[in-house]
Amino acid sequence: MNLHPFLVAIEVGGTLAFAMSGLIEATRKRMDIVGVFSVAFVSAFGGGTLRDILLDRRPLFWIENQEYLWLVLAMVATTPLWLQTLRHKVGGRLMELADALGLGLFAISGATLADAAGMPALVSMMMGVVTAVFGGVSRDVLCNEVPKVYSDHRPYAMCALFGCGVFLALNTTGLPLPITTLAGIAAATGSRLLALVFDVRLPAWPAHRD
Amino acid sequence: MNLHPFLVAIEVGGTLAFAMSGLIEATRKRMDIVGVFSVAFVSAFGGGTLRDILLDRRPLFWIENQEYLWLVLAMVATTPLWLQTLRHKVGGRLMELADALGLGLFAISGATLADAAGMPALVSMMMGVVTAVFGGVSRDVLCNEVPKVYSDHRPYAMCALFGCGVFLALNTTGLPLPITTLAGIAAATGSRLLALVFDVRLPAWPAHRD
Amino acid sequence: MNLHPFLVAIEVGGTLAFAMSGLIEATRKRMDIVGVFSVAFVSAFGGGTLRDILLDRRPLFWIENQEYLWLVLAMVATTPLWLQTLRHKVGGRLMELADALGLGLFAISGATLADAAGMPALVSMMMGVVTAVFGGVSRDVLCNEVPKVYSDHRPYAMCALFGCGVFLALNTTGLPLPITTLAGIAAATGSRLLALVFDVRLPAWPAHRD
Repeated sequence: MNLHPFLVAIEVGGTLAFAMSGLIEATRKRMDIVGVFSVAFVSAFGGGTLRDILLDRRPLFWIENQEYLWLVLAMVATTPLWLQTLRHKVGGRLMELADALGLGLFAISGATLADAAGMPALVSMMMGVVTAVFGGVSRDVLCNEVPKVYSDHRPYAMCALFGCGVFLALNTTGLPLPITTLAGIAAATGSRLLALVFDVRLPAWPAHRD
Repeated sequence: MNLHPFLVAIEVGGTLAFAMSGLIEATRKRMDIVGVFSVAFVSAFGGGTLRDILLDRRPLFWIENQEYLWLVLAMVATTPLWLQTLRHKVGGRLMELADALGLGLFAISGATLADAAGMPALVSMMMGVVTAVFGGVSRDVLCNEVPKVYSDHRPYAMCALFGCGVFLALNTTGLPLPITTLAGIAAATGSRLLALVFDVRLPAWPAHRD
Repeated sequence: MNLHPFLVAIEVGGTLAFAMSGLIEATRKRMDIVGVFSVAFVSAFGGGTLRDILLDRRPLFWIENQEYLWLVLAMVATTPLWLQTLRHKVGGRLMELADALGLGLFAISGATLADAAGMPALVSMMMGVVTAVFGGVSRDVLCNEVPKVYSDHRPYAMCALFGCGVFLALNTTGLPLPITTLAGIAAATGSRLLALVFDVRLPAWPAHRD
């Protein structure tokens, strides 16, 4: 079974959804064209870049696969032509779906690369989560906000962690990698979508009184 | 003289104190469970990670010594059970002591590794300070605050710098490394504790009028 | 033609101008002496450091050329003696000029190093822009502001991009490197100065309504 075209399709959708989230935040902050492009790039490539730096992988994934740079460039440049469409309910739902797919794919890509580099399971799970969420964290830091993934009380990083756990657990059973990869992505993306559908909230952390 | 068990004890205390500072800031910002864990991790491991990246050391220290990850995980997970205790004056003092020990140990660890990599003295001192303070800087950036270490007018980075200076100066005298290491940690931690006891303030920088 | 002394003179001026911008922001935020030194260092060396990390170049440029660390240290330490002078109109203009020269030099240095490492043109241009602007972005993040380069609607990163484009385009013509280097710096610095003189604004990004 050749998963490649399928994974590429998910990666394209996820990268575009992440870049779009940066574009939207940057325009909300009334940034200029430089800010909009920069924040879109950081949102799309920040997580994978930090993963590659922590694991000391070179060339960075967006240098090895330059076409993703061009893809995000083209998307941002053409936004004014089609952004209205995204306002519609269908557009919003589509973006949530693409973002959830990106979450799953990037999480499993981080866990896979860390695992292949011989990292212990705890580190591989952390690399998965970092790959999935650090783009969004950087986006919010550049926009001078507390990172949404840390404070919106919605399962997001948790879904990435869950997917990585499923992936690593299945890997120990000797199942072929394409199967465990798909199962991990499905677990992360699926749990994210369920959380959205059922409006799940993370329990509040016991408050610290000053 | 085998310093190892002694240094490990300090490192455990320092790591926990740094993680705790992240946990407290994150709860103050009403972050959810993901934010609390993330900010605690970044506070505890941010300084050493930046040091390792700048010096190009792999595997990163928290990958090589995975037990620190588990330690911080366990501490954060069990916080609700014992956080009340820290509210007492004794608990607060204990945390200040552990934080000062962490400051000393991380500063000297940064200077030692830079020195061993053949860096000039100025760079080794900077690496010591970066190792000691960057976790706290990242914590404050993620919490959307101006870094406390830059703006609270209390000696902290200065104490790290002083300890590194003592350590590097003594190294040139030919004293054995365990002695100079202890002296450096004592200088950093001691000056920090004295600054707390005597409520020392950094002189204000000549104001810039607009 | 030996460009070296000429490029060093520009690099000294640019580094000082970048450090000065950090010093001014930090004092505006009423940081203490540690904050002022730290933000000045990050503003001066942040861009080149990120470039070196992304390209995996070690030792970092400010470790290889330690004299720049001493230069910035000396400048910050002596600021109170001469800061008044900068308040005058001539001083402000001088700083804008030095900053524009730094912009040009750092942009071309980033593009040159990426090009020499075999990067494709798009990546080399991005490395040029990152080298020129990331110090300022870090400065603003540490000062808890939205990065000015993303939101002040003035051409700055654009000028860096333009200079890198001129440099890389001329390189394909077979002109000697000293000529293309000078032309690239002149294009970036010149376009920045023209934008200042003619008060050019970047077009607003089509607004996103919530």
